[in-house]
Amino acid sequence: MTRGFAPGEFQARVAAAQARMAAAGLGALLLTTEPDVRYFTGFLTRFWESPSRPWFLVLPASGAPIAVIPSIGAALMAQTWIEDIRVWPAPDPEDDGISLLAATLREVGGQVGVPSGPESYLRMPLNAFAEVKAASGLHFARDHGIVAALRAVKSEAEIAKIAHACAIAGRAFDRVGEIAREGVPLSAVFRDFQRLLLQEGADLVAYIAGGAGPDGYGDVISPATDAPLARGDVLMLDTGAVWDGYFCDFDRNYAVGAASGNAALAHAQLAEAVETGCAAARPGARACDVHAAMAAIIGAGEGAGRLGHGLGMQLTEGLSLIPQDRTVLEPGMVITLEPGVTTGPGTIVVAEENIVIRDGAAQRLTRFAGPALPAV
Amino acid sequence: MTRGFAPGEFQARVAAAQARMAAAGLGALLLTTEPDVRYFTGFLTRFWESPSRPWFLVLPASGAPIAVIPSIGAALMAQTWIEDIRVWPAPDPEDDGISLLAATLREVGGQVGVPSGPESYLRMPLNAFAEVKAASGLHFARDHGIVAALRAVKSEAEIAKIAHACAIAGRAFDRVGEIAREGVPLSAVFRDFQRLLLQEGADLVAYIAGGAGPDGYGDVISPATDAPLARGDVLMLDTGAVWDGYFCDFDRNYAVGAASGNAALAHAQLAEAVETGCAAARPGARACDVHAAMAAIIGAGEGAGRLGHGLGMQLTEGLSLIPQDRTVLEPGMVITLEPGVTTGPGTIVVAEENIVIRDGAAQRLTRFAGPALPAV
Repeated sequence: MTRGFAPGEFQARVAAAQARMAAAGLGALLLTTEPDVRYFTGFLTRFWESPSRPWFLVLPASGAPIAVIPSIGAALMAQTWIEDIRVWPAPDPEDDGISLLAATLREVGGQVGVPSGPESYLRMPLNAFAEVKAASGLHFARDHGIVAALRAVKSEAEIAKIAHACAIAGRAFDRVGEIAREGVPLSAVFRDFQRLLLQEGADLVAYIAGGAGPDGYGDVISPATDAPLARGDVLMLDTGAVWDGYFCDFDRNYAVGAASGNAALAHAQLAEAVETGCAAARPGARACDVHAAMAAIIGAGEGAGRLGHGLGMQLTEGLSLIPQDRTVLEPGMVITLEPGVTTGPGTIVVAEENIVIRDGAAQRLTRFAGPALPAV
Repeated sequence: MTRGFAPGEFQARVAAAQARMAAAGLGALLLTTEPDVRYFTGFLTRFWESPSRPWFLVLPASGAPIAVIPSIGAALMAQTWIEDIRVWPAPDPEDDGISLLAATLREVGGQVGVPSGPESYLRMPLNAFAEVKAASGLHFARDHGIVAALRAVKSEAEIAKIAHACAIAGRAFDRVGEIAREGVPLSAVFRDFQRLLLQEGADLVAYIAGGAGPDGYGDVISPATDAPLARGDVLMLDTGAVWDGYFCDFDRNYAVGAASGNAALAHAQLAEAVETGCAAARPGARACDVHAAMAAIIGAGEGAGRLGHGLGMQLTEGLSLIPQDRTVLEPGMVITLEPGVTTGPGTIVVAEENIVIRDGAAQRLTRFAGPALPAV
């Protein structure tokens, strides 16, 4: 499995963005977040974990992107296909890239589009953004969702990376019996599961969640407690393992010893919902249609909550499988199918699988869990 | 080691913020980022990895904070000391918390302070922020650095968590000889080092960086390549391992077999710079003074770059050891000392240690590496 992308991939992304920018009347896009900058450059580093320095990418109406970045990133950015790299010695409390970015934007000219819609944020201080706007003298507008729309449809090279991450996590899930049994604290299971993911080839484990309890668990976002697994618990582990900057996002449920009939029934129902969602996920169907198909199986209707989402450079990105999302599915979109059912007061069981939309039937990126709840 | 904090810790943080808010004439603080929300609530989850949903905390001029959050977080937030929890079914493309947040702010009233200075960002879409501002009818201002200033001075309970993270990483660094030797690809070393950190007790490995080469490495932010370690390389590993939401951030250098005299000399010089920085890091000294003391040893003067930074709930936070930062050190501040020297064309060697400012001499949170470059 090759890391990175051929330069042509980035050139195609830039050309697609520029076509949409022309239609929207934008002279430049100003990008500030890790995935947006990486999408057009290939700049991959965990250094974004440090909030100290802003990073900027200016995508002009024509020509290659311009990186306006802290000097600490110059050597790594020079390894990408980007040639116009402008640096300043960040952090600089007096002028943290503001004059350099404003000058670059002035040089490029035109209306500046900034991602401003759902899921976006501006990764720079609000004070600094106001100064850049004033210093550039340009008009700033939203980006009309251009970057999000492009990122939603994956190339074959991107799909291969997500599939690779899914395969890594699949092998780790197959080994959960080695680390989870009655009496083991959930916190130890979390720690050991991350080790399995790394052993199986993950670059990093950006996300892990889970829960355990009789009949199910309380939610899917809590950190692990030190409570030991008990016979009869349903254990769930959910991961966003990352390979070469691309995520998988799926979970697995296990019975500790044996689970209640309630939990077994729920697990089988979720498998049916996932199969139904997968069958409904075809080009031309809308996100809300896939939601409705799954909600009908789990008997929750409009109140079912979000039953899946887009997936790629981030754990969740793009469309939501909710009644209000009318995004039309296209070949190349990678999504999760994530139905959940209530099994008792305050307990749920949740399934999750990953698929890619293809002409005709969707392609499975995970080996679906199936109806039977496996025991550990 | 106990997880979490006593409720009194959060009450003290809120009281300190409210005293500063009164002085600044703010009626409320609006907080949107993971560390800022967690600082006042204790809300700890890796779910922030998903960008799909905004989360809000409103800190009024008096009384307890109000959480305005997606319903998926209600159960976990209810486990914190926060009692006023207002939820909406996110994501909702039509109204993603906007009317609920605006109504909460209107109820609280007064000028709304939003973190806007260095290192801050607003974790919500710009479009949504504009709508909240309009719907609330209130005046929005910056937060005058209130949250950053409070977070910079750690409580004893916070220091204990950082010390615990440092001890975990220290044990993992002691075991690097198990995983790194001539011929092993750097990518495998990165993967195995994360496993060691988890084995030694890290909840997660939020950050890892490093490099290897004769005389040193090119930068400290690149991901690992598959190039095998060669005899004579200097291998560096740097980590932000996390325990209960608090980071360590330090590195270690190793000679693969034996290193060049150049590298050994650099390592000894860095040890001296760290000792000198540690001696200079006393209450009343400024960040720039500690920088100057270290820069004098490594012979780089003002061009030495950033030689350390604050540390805590984030890998880097707060002050920078740079010539322009005149922040006065106070007891309870946790900082890194991170000098680097150039050892050849395009190669550097970097050391990093963690300390806490105390009355008198600083307390070491890491066992300093010392002058001798250890071999693997």
